[in-house]
Amino acid sequence: MAASAASAATLATASAVGAGIEANTGQVVHTVYFWLKNPDSVADRDALIAGLKTLKQVPEVKSLHVGVPANTEKRDVVDNSFSVFELMFFDDLAGQSTYQQHPIHLAFVENCSHLWDKVVVHDSLTV
Amino acid sequence: MAASAASAATLATASAVGAGIEANTGQVVHTVYFWLKNPDSVADRDALIAGLKTLKQVPEVKSLHVGVPANTEKRDVVDNSFSVFELMFFDDLAGQSTYQQHPIHLAFVENCSHLWDKVVVHDSLTV
Repeated sequence: MAASAASAATLATASAVGAGIEANTGQVVHTVYFWLKNPDSVADRDALIAGLKTLKQVPEVKSLHVGVPANTEKRDVVDNSFSVFELMFFDDLAGQSTYQQHPIHLAFVENCSHLWDKVVVHDSLTV
Repeated sequence: MAASAASAATLATASAVGAGIEANTGQVVHTVYFWLKNPDSVADRDALIAGLKTLKQVPEVKSLHVGVPANTEKRDVVDNSFSVFELMFFDDLAGQSTYQQHPIHLAFVENCSHLWDKVVVHDSLTV
């Protein structure tokens, strides 16, 4: 029964989403990977970590995790070359959009963007 | 005071980790991005989603989120080209390692790996 319910939910999502089309409803999982300009600088890394932790003050950010690469198994599929990781949850797409323009987020970008060389963002909707 | 405590915690982590070295302690955040061989196939996508949802039966998996790309703002830094996203939390590195060898995880790989063309994994430790 549980499997049927899960299948029905998945099908409903698929129907709403359509093949190859991004989703529009659900909880947003926002992940960001940062590569520092100075990857060996603990000071720069900690400044970025401190800056990221200010973002939990944004009301739309429901949960914030800030991390550094884990020393897991070296496998071809694992890319732990990044310096700092940020994970946020939003209730919906509107929350993520509001966050992007929030003064605390804009201040973070203003204060910390000189620290990174590259940033990659992925946004997902939970199904 | 809160800022001082956070700073001290960050410094402790930095000390334990060292410059440019991966961390060894903390909660593991395991993210996986899948690119399907047939990215326009809803059936393949849903088969992968269903397979991923079996992984929450692994005791070491403390939380599981499965998602599809969100229709967020198109920005240069956003890569929503993946098909399916998986997010897991583990209590520690040992939990992640046990999960890799768990029969339910191995069965998932056996049953679903034909569906994807590319997979990228990132492992972080919360600081």
